[in-house]
Amino acid sequence: MTGARAPGRLFGVGVGPGDPELVTVKARRVIRQAQAVAFFAAPGRPSNARAAAAGHLRPGQRELPLCYPVTTELAAGARYERLLSAFYDEAAGEVAALLDEGADVAVLCEGDPFFYGSYMYLHTRLSERYPSEVVPGVPSILAGAAVLGAPLVSRDETLSVLSGVLPAAELERRLAGADAAVVVKVGRNLAKVRSCVEAAGLLDRAFYVERATLEGQRVAPLAGAGATEAPYFSMVVIPSAGAPRR
Amino acid sequence: MTGARAPGRLFGVGVGPGDPELVTVKARRVIRQAQAVAFFAAPGRPSNARAAAAGHLRPGQRELPLCYPVTTELAAGARYERLLSAFYDEAAGEVAALLDEGADVAVLCEGDPFFYGSYMYLHTRLSERYPSEVVPGVPSILAGAAVLGAPLVSRDETLSVLSGVLPAAELERRLAGADAAVVVKVGRNLAKVRSCVEAAGLLDRAFYVERATLEGQRVAPLAGAGATEAPYFSMVVIPSAGAPRR
Repeated sequence: MTGARAPGRLFGVGVGPGDPELVTVKARRVIRQAQAVAFFAAPGRPSNARAAAAGHLRPGQRELPLCYPVTTELAAGARYERLLSAFYDEAAGEVAALLDEGADVAVLCEGDPFFYGSYMYLHTRLSERYPSEVVPGVPSILAGAAVLGAPLVSRDETLSVLSGVLPAAELERRLAGADAAVVVKVGRNLAKVRSCVEAAGLLDRAFYVERATLEGQRVAPLAGAGATEAPYFSMVVIPSAGAPRR
Repeated sequence: MTGARAPGRLFGVGVGPGDPELVTVKARRVIRQAQAVAFFAAPGRPSNARAAAAGHLRPGQRELPLCYPVTTELAAGARYERLLSAFYDEAAGEVAALLDEGADVAVLCEGDPFFYGSYMYLHTRLSERYPSEVVPGVPSILAGAAVLGAPLVSRDETLSVLSGVLPAAELERRLAGADAAVVVKVGRNLAKVRSCVEAAGLLDRAFYVERATLEGQRVAPLAGAGATEAPYFSMVVIPSAGAPRR
């Protein structure tokens, strides 16, 4: 049809845990070829995903920041859920407008897009209407194990990945059944996470990891980790108990 | 001291799930800078890790294949364990000989070195004697979710990563408690894995994924996956049930 134009493609691009060198060759190519990049950011803070990908952007490349209206620390409950849902609708609308112009849009995602990533809120809203592809990335939990120098999961062990936001009783129960585990979303839940790990009998195997692969990286046994509040880029790692020995 | 030479460095390098473009920029640099690359391989089969990294090797780069004496399908039990342990001792000795010459050695690992990787058998034998570093990689399970186009784990869900080698009762129990799950090491355990997934009430959410990101990639609902035996590069993915919707 006259004037009709093929829509652009939507890419969810994992940019890894933070170190710009931990971006994949494919992520770098997709980012460079896209007409526009989009990324989520907390209000008043630079985007972690954009920071990891910054060196891979083309000069002058079109950028679409998607700024959360509030941080999770400031609100909760049904009103917050409605607010966030409206925000994701609006963000999806902005991305769709670019796709309708024929622009390929690379959505930059910390770690991996489908591993606790905000990209999935765009994917569920847009992937049926536009061609889409997800480029998997190195997740933060594997960066945590790498900087610890500790095998994460081996042989026939089970790995449990848990959210620090879970209620204490559930977190403790799930930890108690784990061979190896990582608790993500630690943040201001650090004191609770630590007491759950201790109650599950795992404190002597647990490590606190902050800003893995980034400047200011910090690793400590969880038992000795002093802070009661941790930054966003933090996790608790309980490596493999059955890791191979001689 | 006269003639003394600094030992080389040991690198465990994750090369991702198979697609050579899913190697990270750092992995590529470390591979190119190393004096030698080592990799595990099953007898009579090309190394999957080397295949993923092949395009990133320098022409004429020194290579050290570490060939398993038997495959896991052919043997089991205490004798097999002793045989494998002796094999890893020997492999570590060969890598150590290169490190003693002052050569940096990059051990190529499918997916991530500390995520069910054979590299850890070298790491535990060598990392106290030589400077070592692990370069994390994109794990196969995230490649599986990416090619499915399905969010793997979201919000406050728990992700369980399970081995298909587990006894049926344990596999079923662990699956029943999972929000989202991936079963790795499916291989000839496919029929058992499928019946456990069904018993756990998850069959309608489960997908079979074979050779994710590689030529011959195959994705199917687990309920309709015909084979009773699957290749090594296969998994069962049960994506997030609580993935965001509008």
